Amino acid sequence: MNLPPAATEPSRWTRLAERVVATTRVLELRSVRCRHPQRGTERDFVVVHTPDWVNVVALTTDRQLVIVRQFRFGLDGFSLEVPGGVIEAGEDPVAAGVRELAEETGFAGGTARLLGSVHPNPAIQDNRCHIVLVEGVARTQALAWDADEEIAISTAPVDDVLAWTRDGRIGHSLTLCALLLFEPRWAELRSRPAV
Amino acid sequence: MNLPPAATEPSRWTRLAERVVATTRVLELRSVRCRHPQRGTERDFVVVHTPDWVNVVALTTDRQLVIVRQFRFGLDGFSLEVPGGVIEAGEDPVAAGVRELAEETGFAGGTARLLGSVHPNPAIQDNRCHIVLVEGVARTQALAWDADEEIAISTAPVDDVLAWTRDGRIGHSLTLCALLLFEPRWAELRSRPAV
Repeated sequence: MNLPPAATEPSRWTRLAERVVATTRVLELRSVRCRHPQRGTERDFVVVHTPDWVNVVALTTDRQLVIVRQFRFGLDGFSLEVPGGVIEAGEDPVAAGVRELAEETGFAGGTARLLGSVHPNPAIQDNRCHIVLVEGVARTQALAWDADEEIAISTAPVDDVLAWTRDGRIGHSLTLCALLLFEPRWAELRSRPAV
Repeated sequence: MNLPPAATEPSRWTRLAERVVATTRVLELRSVRCRHPQRGTERDFVVVHTPDWVNVVALTTDRQLVIVRQFRFGLDGFSLEVPGGVIEAGEDPVAAGVRELAEETGFAGGTARLLGSVHPNPAIQDNRCHIVLVEGVARTQALAWDADEEIAISTAPVDDVLAWTRDGRIGHSLTLCALLLFEPRWAELRSRPAV
């Protein structure tokens, strides 16, 4: 069979204009007009604009992970997740992670750093989700939930949580990404005695 | 400090009504009116409705992974991903994965099965992304791209691709989930000689 070359390089389309189709509390739906650089054809593409998000892998002083369970309106059901939320305008991702962790779960302390960043959906979303690791947290803060938040807070051994990423108990893609990025660090930590 | 109980059980809100805010080629933006079962308060929540998606982990006969690189309009840039796409109405996820793999990359053959399913974003999306594993593929089919698709197709050793999930080279959350779910199977395969 005469197969076309596999190494065809995709083109970078030029953004010509964009307009807002709908605005809601959590996202803005946009239509973006783009032109193909070689063909010259123009097309409208959908982009869901949101702020960046942050997800937090929080390891307690006794080396358990902080896990939350919430009712989620997209799913119309309950979801097991790591804590997280929306980064405020101008806010540093690590500071946002520490803030969301404390507000949602009351866990705080220890040392925080950025583990990595992912694109929730580069095909249609323009935002990133940053993954923050906080090691050595304890439950010391009062909760500060948003009006509609109700969160079951728990801790679980790391190896249990990692098993849940493979058996389907954890289904939120961004929580799965957070735990994927945490695994190499956990491989380092688990061989060392807890301080 | 007087901390509230951590084990507060979140309530399941009741869906009262929903209306379409905007319709586009790839998604429908909905507003869903919900009532809290105890408080009786009503609130509108945003739900992005889309079909289910499928992502494909395709292992070639010489044990490399099929990787695609595309221009993505949400990101306004290039993204390294596993092949995938939208599941058609009534289509089986595994059949959809095999179809998308062949159309996008020309790779086919071998044996296909469902590795798992994730929720791209249970907070605001109602769909699932199914992860299909196809073992033993070869490049035998003509490509059948959609009008705006331009895809650089390549293969790479599995351990290289898994390293890219941790070093930031692969940033698409759903591709990361697909590779996370593939890792236990790869741990089985890599210790056995290729047939």
